[in-house]
Amino acid sequence: MLDVYAFATPNSVKVPIALEELGLDYTLHAVNVRKGEQKASDFVALNPNAKVPVLLDGDLVLMESAAILVYLAEKTGRLLPASGTGRARVFEQLFFHASGLSPAFGQAGFFQRFAAEPQPIAIERFVSEARRIVSVLDGVLAERRYAAGDAFTIADIAHFGWLWRREFAGVGLEDAPNLARWYAEIEARPAVQRAIARVNALVPAA
Amino acid sequence: MLDVYAFATPNSVKVPIALEELGLDYTLHAVNVRKGEQKASDFVALNPNAKVPVLLDGDLVLMESAAILVYLAEKTGRLLPASGTGRARVFEQLFFHASGLSPAFGQAGFFQRFAAEPQPIAIERFVSEARRIVSVLDGVLAERRYAAGDAFTIADIAHFGWLWRREFAGVGLEDAPNLARWYAEIEARPAVQRAIARVNALVPAA
Ligand SMILES: N[C@@H](CCC(=O)N[C@@H](CS)C(=O)NCC(=O)O)C(=O)O
Ligand SMILES: N[C@@H](CCC(=O)N[C@@H](CS)C(=O)NCC(=O)O)C(=O)O
Repeated sequence: MLDVYAFATPNSVKVPIALEELGLDYTLHAVNVRKGEQKASDFVALNPNAKVPVLLDGDLVLMESAAILVYLAEKTGRLLPASGTGRARVFEQLFFHASGLSPAFGQAGFFQRFAAEPQPIAIERFVSEARRIVSVLDGVLAERRYAAGDAFTIADIAHFGWLWRREFAGVGLEDAPNLARWYAEIEARPAVQRAIARVNALVPAA
Repeated sequence: MLDVYAFATPNSVKVPIALEELGLDYTLHAVNVRKGEQKASDFVALNPNAKVPVLLDGDLVLMESAAILVYLAEKTGRLLPASGTGRARVFEQLFFHASGLSPAFGQAGFFQRFAAEPQPIAIERFVSEARRIVSVLDGVLAERRYAAGDAFTIADIAHFGWLWRREFAGVGLEDAPNLARWYAEIEARPAVQRAIARVNALVPAA
């Protein structure tokens, strides 16, 4: 049995999407990051980096959403080409997501919404970086149906997580027609719908 | 023949380190990011994300330092366990580096050194995040000789790149004895020394 610690967040949702796509059973455990539960000592014992998601598979405790995606893809032999350029492209997009898109969206959202005082240079820096990255990804998707080539892979799942939460970053898809086309296609997948419903159900009613 | 586009930067240095460790021949091409050469149209044609490093291997053009590390490790069957927990730990650390350590160090350096006006909340945010990550990594290295286990892997190469440039981020190792021990060991490797000399030689004399 697989256990996933997660919440309705951009990095969390990637793991249930992969599990639903792969048809694997899992138990989903809520870690309410709005209440700071990721900093509780029993959770930090699982993930010393104090963030969701975390996957448990028997003795293995794994942090980092994209590392979990690679693990699940290799465990099942699906959603990641076994060799060649197609495989290299998946890793390229996973790391572009992890080091580029994800931090830019996250910081753009933080400085626009949560900073105690306005930090205009920081807002400008991260909003323009988030827009630049959307434009780079739109260019990639002008040449390819999916993020890493002709097939749906874990690279699509990674990018979808933050695109699903793009409003937090204040980013729209008006100027990114290829990304908009891709987003609509991914969002419509039944497995993606099921995963979104499951993570949304982790949030207590207000 | 392998071609690497790089400069004396934290992400660039990872690729020559891997190539030297693996004993592969390569040609190193300078892209002077201090002069903005990464934004020249011939370079953007190679990497639409306009950043170094980039690897060329025949027809394959690959961006993202960690994707290049995975590619080289899988090409040679070295520096990355083929299966099991050891393999999962390498990806976990690679993504912890890409999404956590690297952006925190980069933004801490930017806001302390380059922002046109002081942004105190941004400085505090990224300096404290960089210190938190150093402490998480120090905890990892209290339990393991290398970042992902008992063996030297591409996860060590990734972390080394930014630790080598930690002064930019204003981060020290005084409170991180395990990380300091690890850093000294990695830095002393002959392949690491050769790679550092080669990227430093890309910088024109002042
Ligand atoms: N690179 C990590 C980032 C994880 C992350 O930032 N998780 C957020 C939710 S999307 C979180 O736990 N935030 C709470 C916190 O940072 O304290 C991953 O992809 O798993
Ligand atoms: N995630 C990328 C980041 C690459 C990156 O940020 N490279 C820096 C040098 S370390 C660069 O090219 N900076 C110039 C710029 O961003 O314009 C990687 O690991 O390759």
